[in-house]
Amino acid sequence: MLPPKKASESLTTMTEMVLPNDTNGLNNLMGGRLMYWMDIVSAIAAQKHSNRLVVTASVDNISFAEPIGLGNVLTLRAHVTRAFTTSMEVFIEAWAEDIPNQRKVSTNKAFFTFVALDKAGKPTQVAEVTPETPEEKALYESALRRRQLRLILSGRMKPHDAAELKALFEDSKKVN
Amino acid sequence: MLPPKKASESLTTMTEMVLPNDTNGLNNLMGGRLMYWMDIVSAIAAQKHSNRLVVTASVDNISFAEPIGLGNVLTLRAHVTRAFTTSMEVFIEAWAEDIPNQRKVSTNKAFFTFVALDKAGKPTQVAEVTPETPEEKALYESALRRRQLRLILSGRMKPHDAAELKALFEDSKKVN
Amino acid sequence: MLPPKKASESLTTMTEMVLPNDTNGLNNLMGGRLMYWMDIVSAIAAQKHSNRLVVTASVDNISFAEPIGLGNVLTLRAHVTRAFTTSMEVFIEAWAEDIPNQRKVSTNKAFFTFVALDKAGKPTQVAEVTPETPEEKALYESALRRRQLRLILSGRMKPHDAAELKALFEDSKKVN
Amino acid sequence: MLPPKKASESLTTMTEMVLPNDTNGLNNLMGGRLMYWMDIVSAIAAQKHSNRLVVTASVDNISFAEPIGLGNVLTLRAHVTRAFTTSMEVFIEAWAEDIPNQRKVSTNKAFFTFVALDKAGKPTQVAEVTPETPEEKALYESALRRRQLRLILSGRMKPHDAAELKALFEDSKKVN
Amino acid sequence: MLPPKKASESLTTMTEMVLPNDTNGLNNLMGGRLMYWMDIVSAIAAQKHSNRLVVTASVDNISFAEPIGLGNVLTLRAHVTRAFTTSMEVFIEAWAEDIPNQRKVSTNKAFFTFVALDKAGKPTQVAEVTPETPEEKALYESALRRRQLRLILSGRMKPHDAAELKALFEDSKKVN
Amino acid sequence: MLPPKKASESLTTMTEMVLPNDTNGLNNLMGGRLMYWMDIVSAIAAQKHSNRLVVTASVDNISFAEPIGLGNVLTLRAHVTRAFTTSMEVFIEAWAEDIPNQRKVSTNKAFFTFVALDKAGKPTQVAEVTPETPEEKALYESALRRRQLRLILSGRMKPHDAAELKALFEDSKKVN
Repeated sequence: MLPPKKASESLTTMTEMVLPNDTNGLNNLMGGRLMYWMDIVSAIAAQKHSNRLVVTASVDNISFAEPIGLGNVLTLRAHVTRAFTTSMEVFIEAWAEDIPNQRKVSTNKAFFTFVALDKAGKPTQVAEVTPETPEEKALYESALRRRQLRLILSGRMKPHDAAELKALFEDSKKVN
Repeated sequence: MLPPKKASESLTTMTEMVLPNDTNGLNNLMGGRLMYWMDIVSAIAAQKHSNRLVVTASVDNISFAEPIGLGNVLTLRAHVTRAFTTSMEVFIEAWAEDIPNQRKVSTNKAFFTFVALDKAGKPTQVAEVTPETPEEKALYESALRRRQLRLILSGRMKPHDAAELKALFEDSKKVN
Repeated sequence: MLPPKKASESLTTMTEMVLPNDTNGLNNLMGGRLMYWMDIVSAIAAQKHSNRLVVTASVDNISFAEPIGLGNVLTLRAHVTRAFTTSMEVFIEAWAEDIPNQRKVSTNKAFFTFVALDKAGKPTQVAEVTPETPEEKALYESALRRRQLRLILSGRMKPHDAAELKALFEDSKKVN
Repeated sequence: MLPPKKASESLTTMTEMVLPNDTNGLNNLMGGRLMYWMDIVSAIAAQKHSNRLVVTASVDNISFAEPIGLGNVLTLRAHVTRAFTTSMEVFIEAWAEDIPNQRKVSTNKAFFTFVALDKAGKPTQVAEVTPETPEEKALYESALRRRQLRLILSGRMKPHDAAELKALFEDSKKVN
Repeated sequence: MLPPKKASESLTTMTEMVLPNDTNGLNNLMGGRLMYWMDIVSAIAAQKHSNRLVVTASVDNISFAEPIGLGNVLTLRAHVTRAFTTSMEVFIEAWAEDIPNQRKVSTNKAFFTFVALDKAGKPTQVAEVTPETPEEKALYESALRRRQLRLILSGRMKPHDAAELKALFEDSKKVN
Repeated sequence: MLPPKKASESLTTMTEMVLPNDTNGLNNLMGGRLMYWMDIVSAIAAQKHSNRLVVTASVDNISFAEPIGLGNVLTLRAHVTRAFTTSMEVFIEAWAEDIPNQRKVSTNKAFFTFVALDKAGKPTQVAEVTPETPEEKALYESALRRRQLRLILSGRMKPHDAAELKALFEDSKKVN
């Protein structure tokens, strides 16, 4: 058994400047470039938690509500929320800043999952996560519900077996 | 009113070769690079349908089941499935081929949504989609259900208002 | 003897969006970037025909008649026209679209040749090509003439030995 | 009338190191990357001759005889050989060096043509070229023959009107 | 007069994964790529302090003592140490981690200076820095000495006018 | 003992065009991109002198006095000035040209040092440098002084042991 690790031990911060080739015809950051950066920052967080090479297993629904302009500075923060035997869920938050104009907006929240691999490329067990802050604890708890949704969406679980999720459609709690 | 357009009019095919910088420490394509390509091919499909500049509005859950190796050829096919006033859902399929070893695998299916913008950057109406093949028709029908899930996941709809989705949790039909 | 393959079996379609770093001081696609993409799409077509790793052996004269603007979508289609023992000629067509302005132009036609290599890096035999459509048949026939010109231009054939080409300078038929 | 400029005034030298992303599955430089660099070095030479923005008009047949390995240093030298009203022919030579193993090979010779543009993007006259060395003079002379071939290959001249080229097919002189 | 800002307000953290194209023939990070990242992280820190666009004015001597391998994760932390009218000195520290092998090394310390520019591109005044921690205070103090050395090295101050530095050569204190 | 090599044998010229992604919010070349190019051109010069793989050991203070605009052509010239057992100092000069506007400015002078490595990655002896021109001789002489400064700045020499440098602070000669 691996000793558990704190959620904060995997915390990873990444800062990127939006360059011309990252933008579309409206001079705004393309969604695909943002997901590319999210994948790297969350893979590093998953590596830090597991001390293993990791591969992306899935990405949850992401919304892109705020345009992010050319020259903006993007900050991404990621940490592992919970481990499931050989996989880990990582939570990523992104902020964009137009520094000369002193505008800073929260742009995205996302969940990526990774599988830890041993040197032969086989899935291998990872440590459990110990959440400490209220936010880490809330993310730890809700990870089960997100996992059920992922399993349903990828066809590996039937909707009526997803007890946690099913309750939502009766009680109107928040899914994500 | 814009005249409707066929789903096939937006069909876009993209082919990419996996180069060293696209890979992780196991010589496999990073998930983030794949999502970057998915975003571009689906943005082009949405442009073709709307004849407008478009921005990524959301990405649905994506699973990464198959490793894609260095030197593999990746083919992505995208087309618009359905329009919702100013937004469009695009379906993307990806295949990877190791051509010298004659291995070809279906690697991913994904749904991206885009908003069409006029020259002032404001959302603008797009044509409706006319599905023709059985697959296009099935994607057209299920687009409503996926849209409800997106609205719930982004906090813009309450679970108990999602009639289509709610039925699923009683009937055990396929969500995606 | 390898069984012949249809020209259409090697058909490869590639779609690229012209980004800022692909353009010159006039906001038009640089010729060098276009040739870079042509090389990749035609190498993939040659891989598909031969199921081998391939290397570029030569590029025929290419004209750049149409400017291709920033944000345009470029579509490249390539297929093998004819095989010569260990080498293959690939025909590439390129179109550029300014989708919001509904302008689509044919921009280039090009011929690249590739050599198929075995695992030791030595040239190895490839299947013959079976052309089917009238266009494929015309390209198959004219491949001999283009090959003579390539051999002359690279100093491996003397002009007066190029029977097919020589006739042209008497009859005024089309060279390319 | 613009005063003529020496061929050597446009001489441009470029040095590039072959990095992983420039290579194919055999760890050799891809032809498309080499053409990308050739286009840039020759565009700079054409800029130096004309003091104008320039666009690539055509590329003559290029052969790729020598593999160029990962980590090799590539040197490209380009200068304008001759001007034709608003266009210029540029000659490019490339060498590859594996410096630790002290191997240096001449890899390619190529001819690119460029058109000079004024600020409105219209073709504009360029200075004539004064060749000085025997090699520059030979390139200046043979430029006419290569131009006839380019015009024939792009369908703008009929073979029997190409007096210079036609002679070749009777006399067996070198075409290129 | 602009109100002073704390050194910590400009703190910027950047995380990068070393990819194949960032490495030399020994699979180690090239010094030039590291300086490219240092320039971006420190430019962002200088933007945060000044709320202005900034340009790199100079880079102090940097030593590269530790090799940083392919796949390593590089963390860079930067903050402004002191302001001089329109310029700012930024201190950058870099660490490299081979996460699967649990090796983490401090690799570099560097000082970059930036000039803040107004919208017309002219140098413009920036706020003073208030150092708080002992390390920030030590960096604030020693910034004068480093500035003298920079002025001497760029020929804008004569060695015998550099009182602070001169003392060093008599007292044997640490220069950097 | 390796036979000495002339300074000119390592001369390397590199030409780069400033593309959109190389620029900051003012459309000027970022300092980090310039240092990236300086590192590559000087590494190639050091490879040519030593016929070995080389790694960057240090970079001396660099000033960035002149803005270099988008579309400018940058020329970098580098050669080894002096060898110290297993290391080499390389001198780099950079010029920027706005060719259509016929403006050419000297932008930077820099010194990089490299260590030569054998196949096992261990430092290995390099040939001495024979300077020939007055400029090469001056650079050869002043290399000792710059080396003392580097050793002091990296903490490997105490200021009062740097006889050459110390004299400077009494005599007011040029340090760099």
